[in-house]
Order: sequence, then C-alpha cells, then structure tokens
Amino acid sequence: MLHFENDYNKGAHPAILEALLATNHQGLSGYGFDSYSQAAIEKIRLATACPHAQVTFLTGGTQTNQVVISAMLQSYEGVIAADTGHIASHEAGAIEFSGHKVLTLPHQEGKIFAADIKELLEDFYADANHSHMVFPGMVYLSHPTEYGTLYSKKELTEIAEICRTYDIPLFLDGARLGYALAAKDADLDLAAIAELTDVFYIGGTKLGALMGEAIVFTKNNQPKQFTTIVKQHGALLAKGRLLGIQFDCLFSDNLYLELGRHGIEMAEQMKVILEEKGYSFYLKSPTNQQFIILDNQELPRLTEAGLLYSFWEKYDETHTVIRLITSWSTSQEDLDELKKIL
Amino acid sequence: MLHFENDYNKGAHPAILEALLATNHQGLSGYGFDSYSQAAIEKIRLATACPHAQVTFLTGGTQTNQVVISAMLQSYEGVIAADTGHIASHEAGAIEFSGHKVLTLPHQEGKIFAADIKELLEDFYADANHSHMVFPGMVYLSHPTEYGTLYSKKELTEIAEICRTYDIPLFLDGARLGYALAAKDADLDLAAIAELTDVFYIGGTKLGALMGEAIVFTKNNQPKQFTTIVKQHGALLAKGRLLGIQFDCLFSDNLYLELGRHGIEMAEQMKVILEEKGYSFYLKSPTNQQFIILDNQELPRLTEAGLLYSFWEKYDETHTVIRLITSWSTSQEDLDELKKIL
Amino acid sequence: MLHFENDYNKGAHPAILEALLATNHQGLSGYGFDSYSQAAIEKIRLATACPHAQVTFLTGGTQTNQVVISAMLQSYEGVIAADTGHIASHEAGAIEFSGHKVLTLPHQEGKIFAADIKELLEDFYADANHSHMVFPGMVYLSHPTEYGTLYSKKELTEIAEICRTYDIPLFLDGARLGYALAAKDADLDLAAIAELTDVFYIGGTKLGALMGEAIVFTKNNQPKQFTTIVKQHGALLAKGRLLGIQFDCLFSDNLYLELGRHGIEMAEQMKVILEEKGYSFYLKSPTNQQFIILDNQELPRLTEAGLLYSFWEKYDETHTVIRLITSWSTSQEDLDELKKIL
Amino acid sequence: MLHFENDYNKGAHPAILEALLATNHQGLSGYGFDSYSQAAIEKIRLATACPHAQVTFLTGGTQTNQVVISAMLQSYEGVIAADTGHIASHEAGAIEFSGHKVLTLPHQEGKIFAADIKELLEDFYADANHSHMVFPGMVYLSHPTEYGTLYSKKELTEIAEICRTYDIPLFLDGARLGYALAAKDADLDLAAIAELTDVFYIGGTKLGALMGEAIVFTKNNQPKQFTTIVKQHGALLAKGRLLGIQFDCLFSDNLYLELGRHGIEMAEQMKVILEEKGYSFYLKSPTNQQFIILDNQELPRLTEAGLLYSFWEKYDETHTVIRLITSWSTSQEDLDELKKIL
Repeated sequence: MLHFENDYNKGAHPAILEALLATNHQGLSGYGFDSYSQAAIEKIRLATACPHAQVTFLTGGTQTNQVVISAMLQSYEGVIAADTGHIASHEAGAIEFSGHKVLTLPHQEGKIFAADIKELLEDFYADANHSHMVFPGMVYLSHPTEYGTLYSKKELTEIAEICRTYDIPLFLDGARLGYALAAKDADLDLAAIAELTDVFYIGGTKLGALMGEAIVFTKNNQPKQFTTIVKQHGALLAKGRLLGIQFDCLFSDNLYLELGRHGIEMAEQMKVILEEKGYSFYLKSPTNQQFIILDNQELPRLTEAGLLYSFWEKYDETHTVIRLITSWSTSQEDLDELKKIL
Repeated sequence: MLHFENDYNKGAHPAILEALLATNHQGLSGYGFDSYSQAAIEKIRLATACPHAQVTFLTGGTQTNQVVISAMLQSYEGVIAADTGHIASHEAGAIEFSGHKVLTLPHQEGKIFAADIKELLEDFYADANHSHMVFPGMVYLSHPTEYGTLYSKKELTEIAEICRTYDIPLFLDGARLGYALAAKDADLDLAAIAELTDVFYIGGTKLGALMGEAIVFTKNNQPKQFTTIVKQHGALLAKGRLLGIQFDCLFSDNLYLELGRHGIEMAEQMKVILEEKGYSFYLKSPTNQQFIILDNQELPRLTEAGLLYSFWEKYDETHTVIRLITSWSTSQEDLDELKKIL
Repeated sequence: MLHFENDYNKGAHPAILEALLATNHQGLSGYGFDSYSQAAIEKIRLATACPHAQVTFLTGGTQTNQVVISAMLQSYEGVIAADTGHIASHEAGAIEFSGHKVLTLPHQEGKIFAADIKELLEDFYADANHSHMVFPGMVYLSHPTEYGTLYSKKELTEIAEICRTYDIPLFLDGARLGYALAAKDADLDLAAIAELTDVFYIGGTKLGALMGEAIVFTKNNQPKQFTTIVKQHGALLAKGRLLGIQFDCLFSDNLYLELGRHGIEMAEQMKVILEEKGYSFYLKSPTNQQFIILDNQELPRLTEAGLLYSFWEKYDETHTVIRLITSWSTSQEDLDELKKIL
Repeated sequence: MLHFENDYNKGAHPAILEALLATNHQGLSGYGFDSYSQAAIEKIRLATACPHAQVTFLTGGTQTNQVVISAMLQSYEGVIAADTGHIASHEAGAIEFSGHKVLTLPHQEGKIFAADIKELLEDFYADANHSHMVFPGMVYLSHPTEYGTLYSKKELTEIAEICRTYDIPLFLDGARLGYALAAKDADLDLAAIAELTDVFYIGGTKLGALMGEAIVFTKNNQPKQFTTIVKQHGALLAKGRLLGIQFDCLFSDNLYLELGRHGIEMAEQMKVILEEKGYSFYLKSPTNQQFIILDNQELPRLTEAGLLYSFWEKYDETHTVIRLITSWSTSQEDLDELKKIL
C-alpha cells in the first residue's frame, strides 16, 4: 500500500525511539515533572524566543483544543473559527461538549480574516440584545489550515490587533505547524507566532512523534491550576516523560524543522508530478496537503493500484476532490511509486 | 408609551388572574401534582386529539428548549435548526451549555425544508469520517418562525417523514403557537402538529400567561425520569399550581385560540395601516410579527412619539429593519395611536 | 386536608395578588428591566443595609443554587456543604450537572462549623497531591438549615473569617430566610448576613410569593455578564415584572419579616401542642420545621384524619421521623385542627 | 534514588519497545483500526474467555473512568463508589465535570460490600422524594483497591447480583489489575471478572506499558457510537497503533500476568523486610502497595538516604502513614538497597 492518505500512518522518527530506549530504565517523576519534560520546555522557550513561555504537553489535537478553549473561555463565551476549522467540523463536538459554541465565519481556502472577525465583533456589541447571545471570547485559527493554506505575517498581525482591541485571546492550532514553518515563502516563524498569539500548540503527532502536542502560553497567561484542569479532562498522562522525551528530541538539532522541511520537499515534488500528469488542482496549497479533482471513474483504479488517499468532498456529480498528503515519513520511493500509479 | 416592541409587555389575561385569586387559599400538592395541572393536562390532550400525550409545564422558552433537547439527544448528537432559529441565535448558547451542537441550515424567511434536511442527513452518513463528527439527532423548527412565517401542513409532513426515515425526533418550538393556529390560511391545527411532531410546546408567556410553556410528548416518548431531568436543570417549579392553573384557564372556553385570533386580527389591521402609510415590508408574515424597512432618519421621530419597536437588523447603510408586533393584549386604541404616529 | 407537609402549598399573600392585578395592564420592559424590579432592588438594598448590593430575581431554589454556584466557581473548584445540605441531597445533582463536586462535611443538626471547614481547607493544601483533587472554592450554608436550625452571628462570623483567609466566597441559601430572621433569639439580621456573606438569597417561594428568590451579591462581586449566565441556564424570565412586583410587595411595609414572624408564631404554638401531647422531638428547631419521632403504627391514623406531613427518615425498625411545618399561611384554625387530630 | 513511590516511574517493558521499533516503518490505519489493535483485541477476548468482548484502548485511568462512566450513565444518574475510590478522591472531579455525582459509601480497607450497596439502593427507592435525588446508576469498584486490597470471588458475585437485581452496570477499575490477578490466594481471574462485571479495564500504565488501558465491555453492551463518544472526550488517539502494539505485546506469551507476578513477588519480599525491621503496618495488602506507619522523625532520614515513597495520610500527631510500592520494574537490587536503608 502506498500511504498518501494522512500524515500519521507511520510510527515515530528513529531518534525518538532511540531516546525512549536510552531513557527506559531511568526512574522519573510522573505528570510532566521529569527532567526531560523540563528540558523540552526550555528548548521550546528558546525556539520560540519566548523565555517565559508556559508549556504543557498533551497527547492529541482534539484534546488540546478542548482543554485550551474551555480553560480560557468564560461560560458565556464561544470561540470564533472558520466554518472549516477542525473544531467546527471534525472533533465530534468536543467544544460544545465542554459547554461552548463555535461561532463560525465563512472561510476562504480554509482561512478567516481580520475584517470579518472585526465585523462579527462590532455587530455583536452593536446588537442591543447581545446579552441574550453567546459572547465571542476567543479567535481560533489553524496554521496550516485544514486546506493546507497559510496565514501571512501581515494577516496574523491584523487578526492579533483585533483580538487585542477586544481583549480576547488568539489561539493558533498548530497540529501541522512544522509544515507551515518550512513552507516556501512562509513568513511566520515560531518567534513571530509566539509574539502574535496568546496561546498556540506545536503538533507532534503529525510531525514525527508517536503522539504529543505542546501547548505554549506566550503571555504569562496560563489559566490558574492548569494541571488540575488538564487532569479533569482526563488529559494528564501519568508517564509524562513519554511526551517530554519526544519533544526534547524534536527540539534538539533542529529536528522539528527538518521533519517539516522534508514533508514540504516531498509535497513540492508531488505537486510537480500531479501537474505533469495533468491533474487539476482544487486548491494549490503551500504545505503538505494537496487537493485534486478526479473523475469518479478514476478512483477505483487508484485504489486497486494500492494508493491510499483521503476522500475530501464531492466536487460535482461526476467528480470528487481527494486529498494527497506527504509527511516527515514520505520517502523518495513513495513518490516514484506514486508517479508510476498516476 | 405605545408597546409594539414585543408580545410580553403586559401581565396576564384577566381570567388567569381571577383563577389565581379564586384558588389562592387552596392547599395543593407541589411540583405539578396538583389537580389544576392534571386538569390542564387533560384539556391539552383533548385539544391536541392526543389522548396519551405526556405534558409538562415549564416557565420559559429557553428553559424548555434546553430541557427537551438535552433530554432527548444522546451525548454525541446535535440538533438541526435554521441558522435564524431561536436556539441558534438568541438563547445565549443554552444548547451548547448543555453539551450539544446546533447544526444550522440556511433559512428562507426563517424556515428550513425537508429537502435540505434530507441532504444534510444523507451527506452526513455518506461521509466516511462521520464518526468524527456530531451526529444529527433531532430536527428543531419554530412555528411561527422568528420571522413570523409558518410551515404548511405539506411542509411539516415532508419534514416529519424525513425524521421518521432517519429515526430522529421532530421538535416544534411553539413559543407563539397560538398566533400560528389563528393565522389566515394556516392549515396546521393542534391535532396535526401533535400527529406530525414527536414533541412540541405550547407557549403561554407570549399568549396571555404570566409565564409558562406546556411541553407535549406525543408518541409516548417522554424521556425516563423526566421530572428528575427537569429538576436537575433547575426548572421544576415548587408551586406547580401556578403553571397548571394558567394552562387550565388557557385551555378552557377556547381562550388560547381566542387570544391568538385577537393578536392576528390586530396584526392584519396593522399591516393595512403600514401599507396605507406606504411603508416597505422586509417580509410579510401571516402572524403577529411584522418587519418593515425604515430610513434611519425616521427612527428618532418614532421613538420621540413614544412608539416602542424592536431593532431587527441593519438593512443597508441608510436603512434599518424594525419589527412591530401585536399580541393578545394589543387594543384597538393602540392601533389608532400607532396610525397617528406613523 | 390539613397542610403541615410543606411551606409552599398555598398561593401567595393577598397583597401580592393585588399588586399583580393593579399592574396587570401596564406595559413594562422584560427580563427584569421594569420599574418594579428596580424598586424591589432598592428596597432590598435598604433592608440589607448594603447600598451597592447587586440583586437578581430567579424563580426557584435549585435554579438559584445552580446559577450562583456555577457562576462563581472555577471549573476545577467544588463547593463545601453539609452532607445534609440541599445541594448535596435533594437537588437531583444540579450542581454536578453543571460540572462541580459538592465537598461534604458531616453535619450537626444540619450545620457545619468553622473548625471543620478550616480543617478541610488545611488538609487540602497540605496534601502534596492536591492538584489531582477538586479545589474547595466556596462554602455553602443553608440558613435555616434543612433541619430548621440556625447559625449564630458568632458561628457565621467565624466561617466568614475562614473564607476570607482562603479567599473563597461564602454563599448562604436563604430559601426560608424569613423564618430565620423572625426566630426567637436569632441574632443574625439581614444587614449582618449581607456583611458576612459574599452572596446569599432571600427566598420568596416559601414566604408568601407565588415563586421567586432574590440573589444578593454583597461585595460588588456579581460575576461578569450575569444576565447572560442566567439566560444560558434557562433561568431568565421574560416577564421579569412577575418577580419584581412580588419582591416589591414583600419588601414594602415589612411584609417579608411579618410573614416570617407569623410562621414562627405558629411553629411555637405547634411545639407547645406537640409537647403537651407528649410527642418526642427528634430535634427542636427554632424555626418553622419541627421533627418528631412517631411509632410507625400511629402514621395511618394521622393520614386518615387528613393530616399531611413529610416523611423524613426511618428512626428505627418501629419508629419514623416526620416533619411538621408551619408557614406564612398557617392559620389558627389549622393549629386547632392539628391539636384535635393529635 | 530508590523508587518505591509509585508503579509508573520507569519506561516500558523492553518487549514493548522492541515491538514499537519493529513495526515503526509500517504504514497503518489510525484510530485503532490497525492490525495490531485488532490482534490485541482478539488476544484479550481469549484471555478473558469472552469471545464477544468489545475492547477499546485509551491512554490513562482518569480518562477511562470518565469516558466509561459518562457514556453509560443517564444524565440523572450517579455512580456508587467507595469514599476512597479513585474517582471520588484523586481525579480532580472528572466525573462531576462530565455531569455526574459520585455517590459514596464508607469503605473498609478500600472496599465496599454488597450489603451496603443493597441498602443504598433500597433506601433510595423507598424514599418518596427520590425523583428529587440523583439515581444510583452504576457501581464502581477498584480491584485492587486504592489500599491494595482485593475482592474475593464471593464478594464480587454478591455485588454483581445486586447490580443485576437493580439493572445497573458493574464497572471494575483495573488500573493495577495485573497485580490483583497474581496475588497469593486471589480467586478472581480474568474470565471471572469478565463474567461478573459489565465493563472493566485492564491497566497497562502501571504494568509495563508506556501508557494505555484496555476497556472491555463484556455483555455486548458497548454504548452506541462509542468511537464518537471517545473522540468527543478528546480521548481518541490518532496513532492507535501505539496502544494496540503495546497490548498485543502484553497479551502475548503471558507477559501481562508475568509482570503482575513479578510485582507481587517483590512486594512479598518487601513485606518480609518491613516485618523483620519491625515496621508497623497500617494495612497488610495482598498486592503491590504496602502501607506502614512511621514516626514523623524517621521520614527525613529515609528521604536523605534516597528512598522515594508516597505520603499517604497523617496517622496521628507524631506518626504518618506512607506507601511503599513495588512494580513490574522493581529489581532485586532495589529491594537489597531498601533493606539497607531501612
């Protein structure tokens, strides 16, 4: 089988498994109080140029979104997001389950913009009945978005300014952040993201870890008793070392960025292959997710040839949008094989 | 002041106050187990031609929507509603607060249609990833809608059929049901609504009661331990008599329908006045809510003249949609005064 | 039937019904923004000697407890209460339903004490694992308690001091507050309660109102966007006038205190009757609830004679504790009849 | 440092790390649909003699308790547990956070008994006001308990019978189940547990896994849409392989039972050492947790000598109960060293 269906179908980067082996017999404190977690935190502070960042490691993206959003919102507040945002569509209602509405804005290629956020906020406060409505209490962005697209530094700065004007936090979901950082022409690095957002997370699951996401509170704004909040969500890992060791690896020797770069290089090559083969792009993303429009009749052939892809959405009666995705673990051989199949 | 801003600015119909006075010194059971509540239930069973209806009285609309929806949904389910539905927009996120997503469909004059509901359900089950999404577990309609419009018997029947096909309940919010029942050309009576829906409520607050809504489960489908569920939401009134006596009144001598008819008659006269005065309708509703488009410059004059209305929404840079609303308590003098002011 | 089973089996004090009649045709603002609600707030500020009190009217006790407690607690906090506290036992889990644990202390005749609260707090913070536990975030007292007993000024002062030391609010549930204020030898008046607590409520349902409880935040500490929080709980009454008018009445001409006094006077007479008849008291309370121990064989006779009482608990194999309760509406004739039956 | 403070201070059993390494480059399906998870499920079905068991792997104990309990309870139900049960005391209110009350019974050495559960259930249904109370909807046991004690087959059978009489599920928390299975004189094996309970979990975190707990629904009673429920709690791991591979290892070649046996053997030796040294036992448990009473003055010496232990509770003014715990990873050298220090 040829794996282009998602970016989490392999285990972990070998360096991570080696580190787990090397540390296996050490007796360490639980719940993230081990030395590796502490070292990982220091490295993330350095990488984000945010010396006072408050960092917590959780095991998955939906869990992270639920914990961060419900910990930061007041009960009467909801979170603004693109209607295609992961929290709005593919997290089984985890945000609503924790009591909060997702206030959706129409997306453009997965993105939302400062002007639309501003209008939503202005309209809300202009409405004489707004005390009967859900208060917009946070802005959620994914970067890259669910369509693989990226915010520019200018766009993120404008959104951050609106958030500060209205005194609501800006939260950036970085489940695939490494691919955003490595994309060609990307002008947002970790330091800029740390500066512009109030909280974001660095995704490990899709970038070489067995699992793990690093939440970074950047403004000395971690909610009080955050460990207890994490525990209450069932999200506190006993052997926190498992997360600490992985992020310690990912933030040593530039590994995280290297893994992102590799995924992007594979994606760029894949784009060339798709173009050469004459495939029509639904969207040309600068990151590791690519979306192409296929005649429905072509789909069985690809499946039979052993290509795994993601169904994305119906394009029209006779066509379908599929997603092909590279990752830190895609090899040159995978691409050669893909070329052959297509 | 001239009250056309809402349909709950007066106290109660005199017959209700008289009944409260007449029964005041009787010692009665609490929590809805008094004889008046039981009598009211019997009258509602008769009026809805639903002899086994299970009826519960609560104090307000948002409370009723929250209790019914959260009691009927599984934790992984959400409720389908128009994006203008009351639960989607003006209940401060009460549905999400109880853990459930509102799955919105675009409205047409406040309504949603069987075809769109069917498409949403088909698309959901066709999506290979639907286990990562909120299951559509109920359809919510308001009748009249938030724009005063009505479902026809044909439309409601089609929606009910879809719901039965997918085995999800159909819930009708009747906060202003009396006005729907009395509207000209309306072809849905209480019996038809009881037959087509799985649960609905008969609004009292906006139709002559001090407060109160009667939930009617029509298919022997009241959730188990419903009293405990109501209590858990803080919605169980100690002196349940207060609700029972009011609904006993409203369902004696056709009072409920009479109050609706009066509100509609006043609305029809108001429409004529508005037309004669050359006002432009945003929407011509068959019930007690009317929406007109005004030049922004006209608004201060109306306010100064003592007319109370509801701001509805911005129409364009120089115009505003306002709502004028009649009710069971609107008098001929009110209309004469309105005519003078306009 | 002779009603000694609860204190909410009659309608309302006549003055309240008269006020509802007198104001019935006035067009008033909704949601508590009417002039009567505002007047009632002013009168409560005066009566509590708390000129900046923030007052909100809700419809019932469980609702009030749920709204206040969940609005004031952080997500990781629970509320300390007696194991016999209403929130711990007879509110169908409304506090847990809103996400919070009730941290119970053993009661003595329904009361808890500063020393025990202090020990709970000290033990919690002394425990190295306390971040894995629910933080004690509030103290809840009922006054009178569920056993009719009262806190002394000294006891309440000591509890308030502990709360201030640990910076957690003190909440007093006054569902039957009027009877506490009127009890013989009671040394806590409204001003003292307002001074010592952070929030409390004045119960109307059991003291002459059709329904209604007045929440009083005494330290300028009403949670932000409290109206939206109330709405989100389904607890915002459209015709807020109905609550405002009733509390305006209750706090005019000392009516609230008078009703309390009447209930207490009836209770004192009932105690004499019970003593004369040789009944054995389970507990002699200074307020309107009295608990006596009866031989099980005596119960059918009382029921047959038309006496309504509350089963309280099994005393032993052959005896039962029952509650007899007077109220604002108990008459001299009721007592005479009771005497005859006993 | 000498680690007797908990049973999760080391990494994983070497066989697990080897399996992760060996499978690392395989492309596998996510969310538990990989072949290793499926193989692990089959092995657990065999080991539990429950061929139709429905098995799901989660990452931690609190998460597992929260997901299972909230998925199985109706909104108006709570869960019966010992007051020392993990869910009642050390899970930061995760059960209440998901809306449910923990109905506690007094423990005896960590255990609760059929007679007490029966009495609670009888009293509940005998109470005329029980619709105002939380319904007892499940029984939760930990085995071993938080004090290391065990239920006998007779005790568990009696509890199961009560549960069946009242038609409520019996849930067994097996965070340390391997140590229970291996304890001397234990008469409950996996097959008996599967037969007697409705759902239980097999703990991996404390028995050689990096993390992981296997939920086993034994009566074809897994809640509908359980994957969505798991996702909604943020508990669905993208790389489900990580859990599947570990449990596949643990249930190959009897590894799980072997790890339990090793922990027990170490504990038995530790008990002998403690007895020889004249320590006084707070409780003599048959599993890997031992509780001894120490003079407070002795504590600093142990700490200085490098011994890590858990503070359990104050015994009296001058004595403390500490917990010493062995595990799958305790070595003979560790015991020798312990002997030296003591």
